[in-house]
Amino acid sequence: MAEQTTVSFDALLARVEAIFARAGVRPESARDVARVIVAGERDNCKSHGIYRIEGCLRVLAAGKVEPLAVPKIRDAGKSVIEVDAKGGFSNPAFYAAKDLLVARARETGLAALVIRDCLHFSALWHDVEALAEEGLASLSMCPSYSFVAPAGGKEPLLGTNPIAFGWPRRGKVPYVFDFATSVAARGEIELHRRAGTPIPEGWAVDRDGNPTTDPEAALDGAMLTFGSHKGSAISTMVELLSGAMLGEFMSKEALDFMGGTDLLPRHGALVLALDPQVFAARSGRDPIAEGERLLTAISGQGARLPSQRRFQARAKALRDGIALSDAEMAQLDRFETLGLAAVTG
Amino acid sequence: MAEQTTVSFDALLARVEAIFARAGVRPESARDVARVIVAGERDNCKSHGIYRIEGCLRVLAAGKVEPLAVPKIRDAGKSVIEVDAKGGFSNPAFYAAKDLLVARARETGLAALVIRDCLHFSALWHDVEALAEEGLASLSMCPSYSFVAPAGGKEPLLGTNPIAFGWPRRGKVPYVFDFATSVAARGEIELHRRAGTPIPEGWAVDRDGNPTTDPEAALDGAMLTFGSHKGSAISTMVELLSGAMLGEFMSKEALDFMGGTDLLPRHGALVLALDPQVFAARSGRDPIAEGERLLTAISGQGARLPSQRRFQARAKALRDGIALSDAEMAQLDRFETLGLAAVTG
Repeated sequence: MAEQTTVSFDALLARVEAIFARAGVRPESARDVARVIVAGERDNCKSHGIYRIEGCLRVLAAGKVEPLAVPKIRDAGKSVIEVDAKGGFSNPAFYAAKDLLVARARETGLAALVIRDCLHFSALWHDVEALAEEGLASLSMCPSYSFVAPAGGKEPLLGTNPIAFGWPRRGKVPYVFDFATSVAARGEIELHRRAGTPIPEGWAVDRDGNPTTDPEAALDGAMLTFGSHKGSAISTMVELLSGAMLGEFMSKEALDFMGGTDLLPRHGALVLALDPQVFAARSGRDPIAEGERLLTAISGQGARLPSQRRFQARAKALRDGIALSDAEMAQLDRFETLGLAAVTG
Repeated sequence: MAEQTTVSFDALLARVEAIFARAGVRPESARDVARVIVAGERDNCKSHGIYRIEGCLRVLAAGKVEPLAVPKIRDAGKSVIEVDAKGGFSNPAFYAAKDLLVARARETGLAALVIRDCLHFSALWHDVEALAEEGLASLSMCPSYSFVAPAGGKEPLLGTNPIAFGWPRRGKVPYVFDFATSVAARGEIELHRRAGTPIPEGWAVDRDGNPTTDPEAALDGAMLTFGSHKGSAISTMVELLSGAMLGEFMSKEALDFMGGTDLLPRHGALVLALDPQVFAARSGRDPIAEGERLLTAISGQGARLPSQRRFQARAKALRDGIALSDAEMAQLDRFETLGLAAVTG
């Protein structure tokens, strides 16, 4: 096993923040981006942890994300709040508008946040967890790159289109799911390609639309959605609600705009926030206690709640620190020393 | 092949309406209930067509639905509109509040309709299609009866929990999906039981949680969700948002309340309506035209849009009439003549 170093959340946060500041990102945004990356590492979501730093630096080096963008909120006092990321990272835009979204949802029961023109690289659970901490239920979704064929089709058109949901629990981690509407992540197919192993049936079709277990043929063809035509319908909904409805890129346009899949995608995002206290008020019942009966019954029969593994990793990391390999530590050093030159060399 | 009679939509509507009026349902509600039943028959959704009349009459005869209930709207002028069905059928409550929901969504961009305490027997596509006709996108969901185990579990806890989505198209039928979050309908397992044929793998587990293809063991055990843990997460979301959040029954309570699965379920429902014109306004793009590019690209690669078969059946029925078998016609006669005695005899 590789040598490991254990670092605290705060120490790693400071390092990652310094990397983004060194790369020219404005301090407030560097902090927000570092926060979600380190939170991913803490939760042992390796694909959304410090692994993402390189991808972020590469879009910065390519000039496809605005390092100094200041998110601009536009609020007409109604149910839809907009924040224009102005070509910057999505997370600073979300955090800039979060308090307003929370206040509006508490006031009216239901509010939406539209994030415009953002570089999106993070998981969606950050958003729905932040809202669950405020006692709100929420749904978050965005397009991605068009790698996925609709059910019955063969050409990539839909994105891996993630969707996340959060529900607050008292004194416990929230109920959270966050998953791609594709059956697998594109990175998983890539790993099979490198290893020379077949992919499971049902993940992809080749360019003629035939089922394939050959990772090369899959990457050249199209990925499939989870749950057959039902997952395909949900993925289409994500394109419509978080792409077409906002007047922002859908997955195909996002791909065309970036000119290939080497860089992280730029598009919009939609977050719906609902206040259970407002919805339940007239019933005389406590919605959180009601939800708890369901969630404890799920756990009680030995079924695992979504995100459970992630929350366990979090508890461990907060207690024992975050373990990084020597190679990971060396890469952090390199990014900190070289800045963008680390990815343009 | 059985003898068939062809009836017009309006003629069948009048007959079904008369049946519900004869059964003691107030005229406005009889009309609304008849409308969704005949629309189901028109679309060749046989399981939600005139087949449903008997189930509705049986809950009426059992005194578990209020035939004279007058839906009561409660509106505080915010984003959440409530309509109390007062123990009556869900559809009259939805139609009573629909115009207000549409107006609120157009005004603020996003509004929710909470339907309280309703007897729910219809598909959800009626709601999302009605909103799509008004140019709105919408999501509709409700619990049902707890027949379904969460992923990794073995005890029935979740309902078949349908979810529907609608998106408007200009001069075309809308984009609509409406499906159970269980992998199959309970009725399909029942049909296999009667036929003595095995059910496909993945539909259900027996009471010990083992996968089964035996329909008896499946009915005695638990059904499974579509799409494995992802579908299970979505089904849980439906319980939380349209049960717990509203302070209305979740699927387990609905079952306990009705004292068995012989009768249709009573619970709440949630409809979210979104106005794409409000969401897209600042983008300068036309959200409906944007959506059209995606939807025509799906059709263009030979993939079928959800509900396509239903819309084709509708076009045929509106052109040629609705074909009913002699047995179906005889049953309508019987319901019309005997009223509730037809199901209590």
